Amino acid sequence: MSEQDERERELTETVVASFAGTPDARLRTLMTALTRHLHAFAREVRLTEDEWAAAIRFLTDAGHITDDKRQEFILLSDVLGVSMQTITINHAVEGDVTESTVLGPFFVAGSPEVEQGGDLAFGASGEPCWVEGSVRDVEGTPIPGALVEVWEADEDGFYDVQYADSRTAARGHLVTDADGRFRFWALTPTPYPIPADGPVGRLLAATGRSPMRAPHLHFMVRAPGFRTLITHIFVEGDSLGGDSVFGVRDSLVKPFLRSDGPTPDGRVVDGSWTQVRFDIVLAGAGDG
Amino acid sequence: MSEQDERERELTETVVASFAGTPDARLRTLMTALTRHLHAFAREVRLTEDEWAAAIRFLTDAGHITDDKRQEFILLSDVLGVSMQTITINHAVEGDVTESTVLGPFFVAGSPEVEQGGDLAFGASGEPCWVEGSVRDVEGTPIPGALVEVWEADEDGFYDVQYADSRTAARGHLVTDADGRFRFWALTPTPYPIPADGPVGRLLAATGRSPMRAPHLHFMVRAPGFRTLITHIFVEGDSLGGDSVFGVRDSLVKPFLRSDGPTPDGRVVDGSWTQVRFDIVLAGAGDG
Repeated sequence: MSEQDERERELTETVVASFAGTPDARLRTLMTALTRHLHAFAREVRLTEDEWAAAIRFLTDAGHITDDKRQEFILLSDVLGVSMQTITINHAVEGDVTESTVLGPFFVAGSPEVEQGGDLAFGASGEPCWVEGSVRDVEGTPIPGALVEVWEADEDGFYDVQYADSRTAARGHLVTDADGRFRFWALTPTPYPIPADGPVGRLLAATGRSPMRAPHLHFMVRAPGFRTLITHIFVEGDSLGGDSVFGVRDSLVKPFLRSDGPTPDGRVVDGSWTQVRFDIVLAGAGDG
Repeated sequence: MSEQDERERELTETVVASFAGTPDARLRTLMTALTRHLHAFAREVRLTEDEWAAAIRFLTDAGHITDDKRQEFILLSDVLGVSMQTITINHAVEGDVTESTVLGPFFVAGSPEVEQGGDLAFGASGEPCWVEGSVRDVEGTPIPGALVEVWEADEDGFYDVQYADSRTAARGHLVTDADGRFRFWALTPTPYPIPADGPVGRLLAATGRSPMRAPHLHFMVRAPGFRTLITHIFVEGDSLGGDSVFGVRDSLVKPFLRSDGPTPDGRVVDGSWTQVRFDIVLAGAGDG
């Protein structure tokens, strides 16, 4: 081992040793592993001082653009696949249990309730989409009273929190009926870029990556005694290859069937509409 | 390999592949290595979703406390030893060349000039310290006209940028004389904590680590044709073991000799004063 190599290794060990007195064993494990990987990264790439300074500026810029409506650190985690890796680690494939994917930065608690068959677009622009499905356990038993939260971008690619005013649109929740079923109107998902006017957008541009997300509809499904499911459904055939946050799972890709005929509930739609089915299986709270 | 292991590895490879089109080869190398290490960290510790969320909150808090006078991301890098590792990587030991250490978050460009023998305390509180030394090249040839920047905390542990008002104190610069020498009054360095009222301070508290820095005096030395030196000198015998940013190098530990007798330049000091010598060797700009 060269003298230089020795100096670098010694420093890493000194830092690791500084965490040896951490009272919480889990925190000690995390800080030790984080230290080792950060140091290994710097040593492996022979990080220059200018590159280090650029990283500090990047994090600073990300911090300054982040507020209660914009979360650049989640975006960063998303585009580095760290969000999806964390989800993968924590949600092993488990029989028919519906797969999870990224939460994304646009979930907002306290969405309006809609009735079965109601419309959660709340005036957001886009092609109407009839969504129906069921929530069941791994035995196939329907789960009545499950809370189904849904949110999505409008046809211009914006979530309501990105609007200049503060109105709520294209988000809502409903409760499964006695047969564990749900049905509602939403909007056909369209491709949209993640917010690209900040440091994460500049990183994507510099690395020749697209900021576009595969079109999707967000779901969060909760029921007492079951693991909360955070997922999307994706539009079959619609630019799935390039999802900028690596969120696509084959099992979550669904056909959205387009029609300009009569709608399932007799709603009169001016132009085309789509329909999609999403049957959800929740894992028990104690599983996985 | 388990199915789970396979899914996790595949995801990492997908993210790495997304950077394959990065036009700049160096950026491609950096992003590939960063992705691999971040994913390896998450997989190794089996990062939970709550821990991931805590990390996002930590970075958000660090971003929000950072402004033009407070740099929490540099502090974070410092306490994880990443700053010192970057310096170690970029400044191999090279004969008698003076070793580098961390810049820290308190350097400010545009400090006042002091004459040879002047006092850069500018009213900051503390025990006077007479500092003298020389700047030479690796052949031992004096470097006249080298710019010597010095900054430090006052005896209460605060840098001027941490004062409520915006006065300048305990920082200044001077130019080496025809023999490459410098001499000035400063303050005897005292131990002080890094700013501990933010997320980095909370991390240190949670891990049982002290925020204290070993007492030191900052130097930045520049001369045309030479590599800029960023370093400190440390006070021999004074709590060197626990430097919270891992900045101590044996070669930078100097005796600060205390006296209450006459001073080198006849200045009348009420009480004790110290003196220290620091002979600096700069590497050529093309070296190392």
